[in-house]
Amino acid sequence: MSLQDEVWAGVALVRQRAPLVHNITNYVAMDVTANALLALGASPAMVHAEAEVADFVAISQALVVNIGTLSPAWVQAMHLAVDAAVASGKPWVLDPVGAGATAYRTGVARELAARHPAVVRGNASEVLALSGGEGRTRGVDSVDPTEAALVSARELARGWRCVVAVSGATDLVTDGTRLLKVRNGHEMMTRVTALGCTVTAVTGALLGVGLAPLLAAAGALAVVGLCGERAVERADGPGSLRMHLIDELYTLDGATFLAGVSITEV
Amino acid sequence: MSLQDEVWAGVALVRQRAPLVHNITNYVAMDVTANALLALGASPAMVHAEAEVADFVAISQALVVNIGTLSPAWVQAMHLAVDAAVASGKPWVLDPVGAGATAYRTGVARELAARHPAVVRGNASEVLALSGGEGRTRGVDSVDPTEAALVSARELARGWRCVVAVSGATDLVTDGTRLLKVRNGHEMMTRVTALGCTVTAVTGALLGVGLAPLLAAAGALAVVGLCGERAVERADGPGSLRMHLIDELYTLDGATFLAGVSITEV
Amino acid sequence: MSLQDEVWAGVALVRQRAPLVHNITNYVAMDVTANALLALGASPAMVHAEAEVADFVAISQALVVNIGTLSPAWVQAMHLAVDAAVASGKPWVLDPVGAGATAYRTGVARELAARHPAVVRGNASEVLALSGGEGRTRGVDSVDPTEAALVSARELARGWRCVVAVSGATDLVTDGTRLLKVRNGHEMMTRVTALGCTVTAVTGALLGVGLAPLLAAAGALAVVGLCGERAVERADGPGSLRMHLIDELYTLDGATFLAGVSITEV
Repeated sequence: MSLQDEVWAGVALVRQRAPLVHNITNYVAMDVTANALLALGASPAMVHAEAEVADFVAISQALVVNIGTLSPAWVQAMHLAVDAAVASGKPWVLDPVGAGATAYRTGVARELAARHPAVVRGNASEVLALSGGEGRTRGVDSVDPTEAALVSARELARGWRCVVAVSGATDLVTDGTRLLKVRNGHEMMTRVTALGCTVTAVTGALLGVGLAPLLAAAGALAVVGLCGERAVERADGPGSLRMHLIDELYTLDGATFLAGVSITEV
Repeated sequence: MSLQDEVWAGVALVRQRAPLVHNITNYVAMDVTANALLALGASPAMVHAEAEVADFVAISQALVVNIGTLSPAWVQAMHLAVDAAVASGKPWVLDPVGAGATAYRTGVARELAARHPAVVRGNASEVLALSGGEGRTRGVDSVDPTEAALVSARELARGWRCVVAVSGATDLVTDGTRLLKVRNGHEMMTRVTALGCTVTAVTGALLGVGLAPLLAAAGALAVVGLCGERAVERADGPGSLRMHLIDELYTLDGATFLAGVSITEV
Repeated sequence: MSLQDEVWAGVALVRQRAPLVHNITNYVAMDVTANALLALGASPAMVHAEAEVADFVAISQALVVNIGTLSPAWVQAMHLAVDAAVASGKPWVLDPVGAGATAYRTGVARELAARHPAVVRGNASEVLALSGGEGRTRGVDSVDPTEAALVSARELARGWRCVVAVSGATDLVTDGTRLLKVRNGHEMMTRVTALGCTVTAVTGALLGVGLAPLLAAAGALAVVGLCGERAVERADGPGSLRMHLIDELYTLDGATFLAGVSITEV
């Protein structure tokens, strides 16, 4: 099967199995993330109490950890959930939102990244910050071109033995050896909050049906990117873009996906 | 008056009086819940600080407690708010989101359910979990047919002296003796996050204008369900469904409601 | 330049510079606030951990503090962020959501208001509550006519040496001496949650590009109000109003703004 076919097979499995995706994510992203996962066919849950995160990981198919609006109690819960995921072999994905913006945030992101995520997905600034490079993180938006982060992404992927996905105009996905480029998406998507977080959550859904991390990461970027492209065609701005994007995730079919997806191995 | 007429009279009172509905609810549901209550004509507020929940209950017409994203401090605030509601005779409604998924969650839900809510609204899995039955709760979505929860719902309603509403393809609402069935709604609504939570919040609004618990619970299921049906007709997917649903709550008139509502007493 | 021209120049600067706006805001408002700021061209971030708020203020152009869903840890973070803003001369804006509803909330709002915000924006009830007057705050919605709060607003503006903006059918903005009236907006906007919070956040964006507080406050009311008016023309209810409003913030051009804006100095 081609990469494209494998990704689509993963989407079909999400619709068939409705994997339970356990999200410990930021307050801003919760609504759009939950709606995107439901539209795609997954079953999202947002659970962060220290007393129950391990139990919840046990019944989930994947864990998504997103540090957008972190606080000490949540970071503690993230580590407990990761403990459970690692112990039981459940795949988990990390979104290091805003790494590089503050020392606290960078430190939390690095500690989590070292704990065997299947995938880390960030923008170029965040990935550079994780590697200790001069990421010029500016709040939660990226100011570095994606390519600049490629060296860091490869090193991190090798060091952590995970896949690192760098979102940008062209997305880069690497396991340290292989490199995929995804060219779906549209600039207007950067004007809708938490669509990067949504890609991370969809990565979790694809991991939850057994897709390999490299494919899950590239597939999520392609699926959300392509649905975003299609939504832009009908949108008057970022408000309607967001709504149409959710609809597109629901209606996307294999023929449309295979005709529009752009994933290439370099 | 027929049941339908009584419910509509309640909706008209919500629009006339704009009852203040105090919500201690989950992060995912807050946005759609607040917008649904405003669209219907109620006045929502989300307040959870232990230092003020009792004072806020005092100025509210109803309290909504939803455990979707619980944590110890929030559970403490829920109990303080319930203390105030019970002491002052204010009606309150419980949404035991995800009961059965973890021991912590089930325990919190049971403790709250025993504290004299006017209405408990959940899906079949959650209601079975509350009763100690073999609820196969799977995250926050239900895998049990509604009918299977009916025995539990009746028992719980009698034991707690409250109304128990079980959401499903056909919704069941019982006070332990009477049983109403509501057949509004559409399958696509399960792909929009927090619409169950929205029904719970609308139940609070109807309680807040004095509707009896049995009618408030059935009425909320019918109002949100019917508006959902109407929204689906215009929707391309769950994104546009959600938007249209809010619009329908705002524009719903008595003739449309009475023509479309399906509440029957068994 | 006229007031209108100055405001539009500020909007153009927001689009050009994408100021980083640090929000410590309520859970209900986060989604619509972030999306509105992004649509307008600003770069929003929601950051509330005590360990990082000061560092985040340092890289931001403005700080927005909104007490809608307050709790002790968040209040502590608000004060730390305000410390950093005041020390570094960064402008900050306060939204005293629900002041007057509970003693706790009123106390927190007053403590913050005394700490040199550039702008305080609330409804009439909230402003009256801040002044110790008989604000009949009813949850988070206002029951006082705007004009009734004008005396309080002037006094507070003089006492705190800041601008006080009172939202209402006609918005009032005063620095204690000058008084601007803004007559944009539409009644249906009161049925969409957190649009007042959105005005506060847009005030932060305009402060972040150097607009004077009086103009930033009036400008934000006018921009959001005018976009709301335009959105209502295409809306079927508050659900579609919200979506169109975000689109309008994105597409608004100078000619449309100058033709539709209503800011007058009294």
